[in-house]
Amino acid sequence: GSVLGVKEFDISYGDEVASALRDGAPVVALETTIVSHGLPRPDNLTVARQIEQAVRDNGAVPATIGMLGGRIVVGIDDEQLTRLATSDQVAKLSVRDLAVAAATGADGATTVAGTSAIAAAAGIGVFATGGMGGVHRGAPYDESADLVTLARCPIALVCAGVKSILDVGATLERLETLGVSVAGYRTTQFPGFFISDSGFALDWSLDSPERIAAALRARQQQGVHHSALVIANPLPTDEQLDPALHDRVLADGLAKLDSEGITGKAVTPFLLSHFHSATEGRSLAVNVRLILRNAALAAQIAVAAAGR
Amino acid sequence: GSVLGVKEFDISYGDEVASALRDGAPVVALETTIVSHGLPRPDNLTVARQIEQAVRDNGAVPATIGMLGGRIVVGIDDEQLTRLATSDQVAKLSVRDLAVAAATGADGATTVAGTSAIAAAAGIGVFATGGMGGVHRGAPYDESADLVTLARCPIALVCAGVKSILDVGATLERLETLGVSVAGYRTTQFPGFFISDSGFALDWSLDSPERIAAALRARQQQGVHHSALVIANPLPTDEQLDPALHDRVLADGLAKLDSEGITGKAVTPFLLSHFHSATEGRSLAVNVRLILRNAALAAQIAVAAAGR
Amino acid sequence: GSVLGVKEFDISYGDEVASALRDGAPVVALETTIVSHGLPRPDNLTVARQIEQAVRDNGAVPATIGMLGGRIVVGIDDEQLTRLATSDQVAKLSVRDLAVAAATGADGATTVAGTSAIAAAAGIGVFATGGMGGVHRGAPYDESADLVTLARCPIALVCAGVKSILDVGATLERLETLGVSVAGYRTTQFPGFFISDSGFALDWSLDSPERIAAALRARQQQGVHHSALVIANPLPTDEQLDPALHDRVLADGLAKLDSEGITGKAVTPFLLSHFHSATEGRSLAVNVRLILRNAALAAQIAVAAAGR
Ligand SMILES: [Mn+2]
Ligand SMILES: [Mn+2]
Ligand SMILES: [Mn+2]
Repeated sequence: GSVLGVKEFDISYGDEVASALRDGAPVVALETTIVSHGLPRPDNLTVARQIEQAVRDNGAVPATIGMLGGRIVVGIDDEQLTRLATSDQVAKLSVRDLAVAAATGADGATTVAGTSAIAAAAGIGVFATGGMGGVHRGAPYDESADLVTLARCPIALVCAGVKSILDVGATLERLETLGVSVAGYRTTQFPGFFISDSGFALDWSLDSPERIAAALRARQQQGVHHSALVIANPLPTDEQLDPALHDRVLADGLAKLDSEGITGKAVTPFLLSHFHSATEGRSLAVNVRLILRNAALAAQIAVAAAGR
Repeated sequence: GSVLGVKEFDISYGDEVASALRDGAPVVALETTIVSHGLPRPDNLTVARQIEQAVRDNGAVPATIGMLGGRIVVGIDDEQLTRLATSDQVAKLSVRDLAVAAATGADGATTVAGTSAIAAAAGIGVFATGGMGGVHRGAPYDESADLVTLARCPIALVCAGVKSILDVGATLERLETLGVSVAGYRTTQFPGFFISDSGFALDWSLDSPERIAAALRARQQQGVHHSALVIANPLPTDEQLDPALHDRVLADGLAKLDSEGITGKAVTPFLLSHFHSATEGRSLAVNVRLILRNAALAAQIAVAAAGR
Repeated sequence: GSVLGVKEFDISYGDEVASALRDGAPVVALETTIVSHGLPRPDNLTVARQIEQAVRDNGAVPATIGMLGGRIVVGIDDEQLTRLATSDQVAKLSVRDLAVAAATGADGATTVAGTSAIAAAAGIGVFATGGMGGVHRGAPYDESADLVTLARCPIALVCAGVKSILDVGATLERLETLGVSVAGYRTTQFPGFFISDSGFALDWSLDSPERIAAALRARQQQGVHHSALVIANPLPTDEQLDPALHDRVLADGLAKLDSEGITGKAVTPFLLSHFHSATEGRSLAVNVRLILRNAALAAQIAVAAAGR
């Protein structure tokens, strides 16, 4: 399995991340599909740097994760980030793609599932993203691998819920079925990504990074449960997309799916692009705001968990 | 992760349970949601003590499991049992709630999922309950976390099947899909909780506690399969709820769901309460009988497994 | 848990397999339900021997897996193979049945799920079969335990896809949800078992046994993902069942299900038998061809993975 003693597929670590992990300093994992596939160019690279800066501003080291030339890198540098943000040859890597992509020497951006699994394997306990995947509307078998992967990875995932273009209620049921913990950050209402409240209630609210860190410590000390803790972090109501606008755009989008006969894998990109154009870019600005807030909260949790 | 060397979230053990586990003596795990949420007061406390006694009468130590002030306790004492049976501030804790509840310092009663995971972590191999959770009727995504949790916990769960208010057929399919073993105790018909026979057949029947203990030993020695073994223990036909009454009450209840527009999470409590009133309390008496029988069988299995 | 120091339920190994595993020589796991339940007698025994020979011809040791008198045997001998091929008392053993069957002293043939789990426990990394299980048409809860089991077993499964009598699209979605890797062998079209192309596309193609071995090595070195890699190996188009015949027979079969009111567990055997008779045995010949090809490819992968 190795050439001259070098394992060709070992995970590589950025210097700063490697030293933080060695020292027990706070680290926050970040994904890269938002960079490669989630945000339009050239904003994607700017925003990716802002997310890393939000982690730093709150006292933690960002560990942005991706694949370069078949190697998983935890803590990519700015040159590698630029490559993933600008190349047209970047695969979207869920957890099941990591080994096959490595064998083909691919460049790749990791999804929530891929990043969660790598973070857990690397010993990084907190991960910030925008929203997590879920169950697709009207497609009972089309369920993101994020959910099952979270059920296997003992991390904290800070997100703003699930995009409303998915079936939020079914997604919450699956998280319950799969044993994934969910708590609101200072709320018992599950956030709706673009909007502060999805309309679905939560059983638990945690009110400080210290309390969240205590929950992570409890999980480790109890040794009973090995799934993720989703921290659902809503936008303040004055920063959300106007809920009336949101509901109208969503209803229009769903109606267009019907009238234009769009089904299956085409649904999500269609609805996201519809949101972007129908809100004249406001949905995108909201998307960026919530990610930066999630990165900041994740860093505060990592700091609290590191006991510093 | 600790204050003055004391880990604040470690599992606590009752003295008798701790010493039984140390000695390899037979222990049976018991859940507490039946005490806090499943049975009406003040019978709930009486019945909880009877269940513990049924375990003792059959040669094993009862390990009733709950959370007190944020601490998981395996083998709660009578004072703690009384607190969970009488307080109005007792959370219902599935496996995914354990760490978050601990961080909030809650009192809590553990579900089948929560208890199974704690028992497995504590090294207790046999668990007795009334019935396990399952798939909800007419709600494809509403599937109890019990099923996925059983797929992860190498314990034996003694129960009387699944309440008929759930979708029994879909539940059996999910158990098959998830790789959870199911065997009837002296029957190849899956019991129907209140009634002896749900109408669904099983592939395997085991005819003695010794044979069941052999299956648990086989699982351990093979080292191939790490999911639960459900022992489906039917009531004798002369102790069941009259099947004609059962079927009529169930049909009435399902019709009322339709006519009163009851859906989602309201379905199960509505149907259970309907059974209670429409059978003039007979369903409750049957419920208690089957739990006591399951506790006795579980103790016999634990004794056989301990090789005493 | 043992009698005179002998563990009664330990896995037994055939001599040749035991020595190959000790030496790190290439080994391929083979299942036995195809022998006991999948193929008509007496061809079943002949074909089983041909499959083993195909493994040998390509440089690896066949480890045919089954249960004899309650013992799992990895690498059954010809006498044991004959017993499973000719007895009428052979249980069909999925992973969840292994311990219970052992406790009853049964003879049994292992399914894809059962064989995958045993292979993984025995340290055998490559497994060849015909087709894997999947989601049943029109039966949302009827999903083969193969899928969840593959999500837990870090093996390579070489197969020709999923029989078209199942819901192929839903099966591919479940594999994605569960995090099971799928790659085509020299194709990006998922094969359709009897036919070379199911009509569904794949994200990844691997073009040599060495490349597949590299993916297995990457998975191990990364340490992130612990599920199976399905290698989908299509028949060459000139060896497939004529696609027009296939589509007509499938449509006829599905129509007959409706008109004859066949549902549930009766669907699959009905459709398989319909294929057999309606193609005048050609579907069976195709079935045998694809298994032999899968066995050969699996052996080549095992050889490449062993680095010889
Ligand atoms: Mn999908
Ligand atoms: Mn539910
Ligand atoms: Mn099935």
